[in-house]
Amino acid sequence: MISRVLSAELPAHVGERVTIAGWLHRRRELKSITFLIIRDRTGLAQVVLTGAVTNAAEETVLQIEGLVVANAQAPGGAELTEPVVTMLSGPAEPPPFDLYRPALTASLPTILDHAPTSLRHPRLRAGLEIAAASAAGFRAALDAAGFTEIATPKIVESATEGGANVFQIDYFGRPAYLAQSPQFYKQAMVGVFERVYEVGPVFRAEPHDTGRHLAQYTSLDAELGFVTDHFDVMPVCRDAVAGMVDSVRERSGSALTLLGAALPLVPAEIPHLHFTTAMAMLSAATGEDLAAEDDLSPAHERWLCEWAEREHGSELLFVTGYPLPSKPFYTHPDPARPGYSNGFDLLFRGTEIVTGGQRLHRYDDYLVALAARGLDSAPFAGYLQVFQHGMPPHGGFAIGLERWTARLTGASNVRQVTLFPRDLHRLSP
Amino acid sequence: MISRVLSAELPAHVGERVTIAGWLHRRRELKSITFLIIRDRTGLAQVVLTGAVTNAAEETVLQIEGLVVANAQAPGGAELTEPVVTMLSGPAEPPPFDLYRPALTASLPTILDHAPTSLRHPRLRAGLEIAAASAAGFRAALDAAGFTEIATPKIVESATEGGANVFQIDYFGRPAYLAQSPQFYKQAMVGVFERVYEVGPVFRAEPHDTGRHLAQYTSLDAELGFVTDHFDVMPVCRDAVAGMVDSVRERSGSALTLLGAALPLVPAEIPHLHFTTAMAMLSAATGEDLAAEDDLSPAHERWLCEWAEREHGSELLFVTGYPLPSKPFYTHPDPARPGYSNGFDLLFRGTEIVTGGQRLHRYDDYLVALAARGLDSAPFAGYLQVFQHGMPPHGGFAIGLERWTARLTGASNVRQVTLFPRDLHRLSP
Repeated sequence: MISRVLSAELPAHVGERVTIAGWLHRRRELKSITFLIIRDRTGLAQVVLTGAVTNAAEETVLQIEGLVVANAQAPGGAELTEPVVTMLSGPAEPPPFDLYRPALTASLPTILDHAPTSLRHPRLRAGLEIAAASAAGFRAALDAAGFTEIATPKIVESATEGGANVFQIDYFGRPAYLAQSPQFYKQAMVGVFERVYEVGPVFRAEPHDTGRHLAQYTSLDAELGFVTDHFDVMPVCRDAVAGMVDSVRERSGSALTLLGAALPLVPAEIPHLHFTTAMAMLSAATGEDLAAEDDLSPAHERWLCEWAEREHGSELLFVTGYPLPSKPFYTHPDPARPGYSNGFDLLFRGTEIVTGGQRLHRYDDYLVALAARGLDSAPFAGYLQVFQHGMPPHGGFAIGLERWTARLTGASNVRQVTLFPRDLHRLSP
Repeated sequence: MISRVLSAELPAHVGERVTIAGWLHRRRELKSITFLIIRDRTGLAQVVLTGAVTNAAEETVLQIEGLVVANAQAPGGAELTEPVVTMLSGPAEPPPFDLYRPALTASLPTILDHAPTSLRHPRLRAGLEIAAASAAGFRAALDAAGFTEIATPKIVESATEGGANVFQIDYFGRPAYLAQSPQFYKQAMVGVFERVYEVGPVFRAEPHDTGRHLAQYTSLDAELGFVTDHFDVMPVCRDAVAGMVDSVRERSGSALTLLGAALPLVPAEIPHLHFTTAMAMLSAATGEDLAAEDDLSPAHERWLCEWAEREHGSELLFVTGYPLPSKPFYTHPDPARPGYSNGFDLLFRGTEIVTGGQRLHRYDDYLVALAARGLDSAPFAGYLQVFQHGMPPHGGFAIGLERWTARLTGASNVRQVTLFPRDLHRLSP
């Protein structure tokens, strides 16, 4: 390994000659002195050049041997003097934006076109770090609750869940599709492990060109058996979100600070409202006639989040019991309320970030549910097989990692916190 | 949650009335008594019926309330008597094999056709559990070494690495491809985080119908910057494998026991051989003329593993310096040995399970390497961009999770330890 001291470790080496290595973040030339700011994975280090000036462009990777001197004005309180500079990379071309500025001033398309370089900006990097910490927290929470991790097929035989919005692939000469979710497989695996989760890519041929839709995103999926109904799934979802928040706090504190982002308090029990109650409150507050609505609009979601914060001091709110027609066919109906489901959404800072619920678990109920929607059961034969061989009452949920991270960091567009996003127009880098 | 005691907890409840729930693993009817064996995620529980006999078929999900009585002959030393049985699932159809037998006697195609049910067999389940524990250990080892987790695009613009063996997809009306590896992206992310890893699916349109090839598998990928050469990558690979072994030991001890599988000792330094030395040894031992060979055959890999075990007591062996033509264009050449690379493979129990090496990091070197192979650089423009903006010397490796798990558990076919495998012929379930 190239023997080096990391920038964050410099202050511990005052008085010693050490080697550092990293990217030339910024070069500032004064009359008789040049400052090189070197960026590595732990932060920035200042190097003072008095003699020969390097003409290396920003982003060139340099290795610098020098004497560590205390300087209260330098990042971390120490800087490198009497340097000997070696170039580790090839000579760099300067990127089309200044990475050393507090915020990237380029447009989003420019930022995304140059993602391998723009992601080096500390603020963009911070968003990705928070996404990684969130995924780790999700896993830790579910590991602790006895869940087993699974990795399901991403190439499937039929366009299962919806029918629309799927990508078709040429699979050894026959058509196949990219999985829109691990839904069917995670349910099947409840039959094996009782409690399973997956962190993996899902694919939606989203024709919507919005700030919250992607053609590929990371889905945090969980499913568990032996529930009474969806009210047994919601606490697990709460614990997963709490685990994500805890992990971000522990692993990415400085990334949060850099972005000025605040973590939500996750109440021991997240407040919940039935869909009909939510609609009645919205109707009363806005005067709208919502009797025919079977889903919440973005404006409704924002209003409800403000309500939950005001009334319960919670930035998180469960809405339960959505009308059955708005939910997929595998959703378990509410036995006590015809037409309503045992499904739920979790709203966070104005947006739905989790969808979940209890699923059907009896084979005959699936046949009835498919027929009620006018769907042929034949394409679902592979999926339905598992319910012929004994499945317990079960349910689960899915969290969109990028959407969660955007809400957490205040990013207005989910692409700002996505590694090389894919959408209607974008397929590279 | 359905209030229940898990089967493994039964012995702690002798003398109490409790409720258990799980799958009817087996029903044994004697003259005046019927035994129900119930399977849950912690093991098996025995229920004694003396009166009314349930006619539920195997795999039906039952909830059983009863009195816990000590019985040395019962699994765990306790059984449930005076039971009240409730059916939680619909009535189950018996699967086409006996899940209660020590080994599944069905053929592999039958097992795979009925994967949602066959995976419930404790031995198949054990393999998946070991795969999950391995992935967790990989992550833990790299987290501890300062790596950041990434999630890269699985839909890419050009058939990058090879050209052959890629799946084509219809991406909003234009052609795109499924990623064969996160290689290019993980390299780019070295520019952001210095050290990154990914656990995710990769896709190969493998025309080979063998016991070790899959169309989708889970790749454990790592990449790190500021290396001197591949000898700085190999210790990280060693630590990742050691982390996987430790995690399997801690999380899946009983799964290992069930499969009669032994974990390898991972030496502090895994022995390594240069490709030319390995070839000379093979030539001397077998009398074969191997002068024109630029890769190891499966038989050679087996011979070398036996040698490493005999000479070094190690089931793991690095082979380094493969000839450049056998390695991808981004492989760094060995500056001291023209024609040879700074690449390595890790062999384990007769098979290559890891490929890795140092990569090129200078833009000009990429242009030379592509030209030397007669490849046009235009399709690689997106990839090459990052090397124009400063990249440190770096390298990495990739471990095939299913192949590793097969070697670890002694499975003769990688499909035996894969959740719903995809291959030339198989696209469902």
